[in-house]
Amino acid sequence: MSGRSVAPAGKHWLVEMYQTPELDDVARIRRALRHAVAESGVRMIRLQLHHFGVGRGVTGVALLAQSHISIHTWPERRYAALDIFMCGSKSNPRKALDALREALAPGRVRVRRFRRGLGRV
Amino acid sequence: MSGRSVAPAGKHWLVEMYQTPELDDVARIRRALRHAVAESGVRMIRLQLHHFGVGRGVTGVALLAQSHISIHTWPERRYAALDIFMCGSKSNPRKALDALREALAPGRVRVRRFRRGLGRV
Repeated sequence: MSGRSVAPAGKHWLVEMYQTPELDDVARIRRALRHAVAESGVRMIRLQLHHFGVGRGVTGVALLAQSHISIHTWPERRYAALDIFMCGSKSNPRKALDALREALAPGRVRVRRFRRGLGRV
Repeated sequence: MSGRSVAPAGKHWLVEMYQTPELDDVARIRRALRHAVAESGVRMIRLQLHHFGVGRGVTGVALLAQSHISIHTWPERRYAALDIFMCGSKSNPRKALDALREALAPGRVRVRRFRRGLGRV
């Protein structure tokens, strides 16, 4: 391997959604993730969601050919922690985030953006 | 909901592993994730791994009752991108990271640590 090689690049966004309704609705969260995947130029490998029970949170991940989108919700706090990790030049985390905002309707969002795997290896 | 409520806290670590051998070995990666989950005081909900083919990368996630551990590998670059997201006072991302380092034997590691969900909601 060349010392000049760079590791593959990826965009990893940590997303906090506050003041968000109906975060115990697993069907709603499934639709939101499917919508985000469809909008962002990536391919779904598998969508895995787990509901902790009536009125309780949902946790899950959309495993992608270009990495993943995860969601963990606390409906009693109206809070969800998401991360959007996308590799490849055709994937678009901005479109994924827009789709998730549209579907989940948070009152307030915080996004932190990072690059993954950059630099010489 | 009280204006004094704070959102649940979580620790989210972004981990780059460089100079890492055998990242096309899905059984090895499965063992590494199981080891990390066993060591870090969390409960596995489901372990989902996908292998893109002989000599190619592995992508997957350990979905936890306390959030997740993900891994995406590029064996041809000897590079893996992981993230360890753990909620709850009993979970220990440091022990998860130590177990992953022990199992995957990277030559060099970079870790960035973040808090999730803090602050008034």
